[in-house]
Amino acid sequence: YRGKEVVPGAPEAISGLKRAGKRVVYVTNNSTRTRVAYVEMLEDMGIAASIDDVFTSASLTAGWLAAHVKDDNISPKDVVVYVIGEDGIKNGLKDHGFVLAEDQDFDAGKALFGKVRFVVVGLDRHLTYHKLDIALNCIVHGAAFIATNDDASLPMEGGTIAPGAGAIVQALVTCSKHPPDFGSPFGKPNPMAFHEIARVTRTPLKAMVAIGDRPETDILAAKRAGITSILVLSGITREGDEVPDGMAPDAILISIDELNGLFPHISRH
Amino acid sequence: YRGKEVVPGAPEAISGLKRAGKRVVYVTNNSTRTRVAYVEMLEDMGIAASIDDVFTSASLTAGWLAAHVKDDNISPKDVVVYVIGEDGIKNGLKDHGFVLAEDQDFDAGKALFGKVRFVVVGLDRHLTYHKLDIALNCIVHGAAFIATNDDASLPMEGGTIAPGAGAIVQALVTCSKHPPDFGSPFGKPNPMAFHEIARVTRTPLKAMVAIGDRPETDILAAKRAGITSILVLSGITREGDEVPDGMAPDAILISIDELNGLFPHISRH
Repeated sequence: YRGKEVVPGAPEAISGLKRAGKRVVYVTNNSTRTRVAYVEMLEDMGIAASIDDVFTSASLTAGWLAAHVKDDNISPKDVVVYVIGEDGIKNGLKDHGFVLAEDQDFDAGKALFGKVRFVVVGLDRHLTYHKLDIALNCIVHGAAFIATNDDASLPMEGGTIAPGAGAIVQALVTCSKHPPDFGSPFGKPNPMAFHEIARVTRTPLKAMVAIGDRPETDILAAKRAGITSILVLSGITREGDEVPDGMAPDAILISIDELNGLFPHISRH
Repeated sequence: YRGKEVVPGAPEAISGLKRAGKRVVYVTNNSTRTRVAYVEMLEDMGIAASIDDVFTSASLTAGWLAAHVKDDNISPKDVVVYVIGEDGIKNGLKDHGFVLAEDQDFDAGKALFGKVRFVVVGLDRHLTYHKLDIALNCIVHGAAFIATNDDASLPMEGGTIAPGAGAIVQALVTCSKHPPDFGSPFGKPNPMAFHEIARVTRTPLKAMVAIGDRPETDILAAKRAGITSILVLSGITREGDEVPDGMAPDAILISIDELNGLFPHISRH
């Protein structure tokens, strides 16, 4: 999709893949919306999806953090997280049982600085200096610094752009002199996105195909995960654009319509 | 000084320099306070100073910008500036006659995006996402990106730190993919700070001596400007600390008290 507009042919292509017995999942670097909001957005575009089909950088981050603390025999309900972000990441963390530190906790004596275990940073269109200050001091006091994604900017309607999660992440990297921990950001092009999807959907990476319109996120993440990748020239990338080194997809489709030609005779196995 | 405390011996050392016929000026990377506020702060510490003796990264930036547009035969009153910053930089620009674009101008149609000629970024403890968004779009529409200083963080009372101007600057560098223009940031260690002071005070660089407690800003700026530099171990740097490569001062004083020993017999010339 572009903004609220569905790419022509996309619903039909998705239906075709499903008829061919393929599981279709949706992966976005946007950490602001909840998975439920994406299901509703897809429905509005004529695409039927369930919450389990939607993976956002927020849901991937929250899922990974939950698995990580459980590996240490710690329950998320004993883990305090400070979030710079919106509903997508906040609800994702709450769904996994994490305790969110609210701003007002810090105003009352900043007693929680040493108690926050993770600072999770995504796009927050209500960012304030106060939030950066709290996040910085939590990191200085030992919290791990987790970034949902590092998209520098967001394309907006009318050709303007807006600051992305990556801008907020770099502000914190600068003042804390501390890069994000655990190989985060968790969004594409981090291959962890596809590894996590493989784990959750119990699908081997070699059976997965990633389709996207951004070489520097979609295709690079797929290549890093060893997944077959298809670049579609229906969005950000246009015919004749140079694809940067190391981001060459396995196939290029001028239009998503061509997708059905690729998988017509494959039946459910 | 440290916070609101004067370094013991500093007022006496400054008096001694003045008695020896030296002009004493004060240079700070802080862009939030006005020069008048610094004069008052120095007075509270028992140090007499006039506004012309105080140079802040804000006053240096505003002065340089005014000289720059006048070189192009443009009056500052015809130049619209968008500021992320506090009183120091806002008043500095107004004092030079620049027109400040206020936030509400942008809310009403964002009509000024292409009209803003400079985006000036300093420390702003009332930073919001909205301000970053406006600054980004002004830069995208051709405004020059000016940074007052790039201090990553500020030391605070009680051992905590706070995000500095450099964190805000890096957020904008990230989303605009545009480094600051004209060799800004204008604060130390940019030698432009001392070049500008030399110009304004009509003092040759070789006649200047810079005294400071930070090798990475005070001493480095002095060395880059070719000024004799003295590191005083009364503040951020302590005896036994390693001084990084390229930041070795011409002299080191354990205490500011020793300063009078260096200039006892020099009379006004």
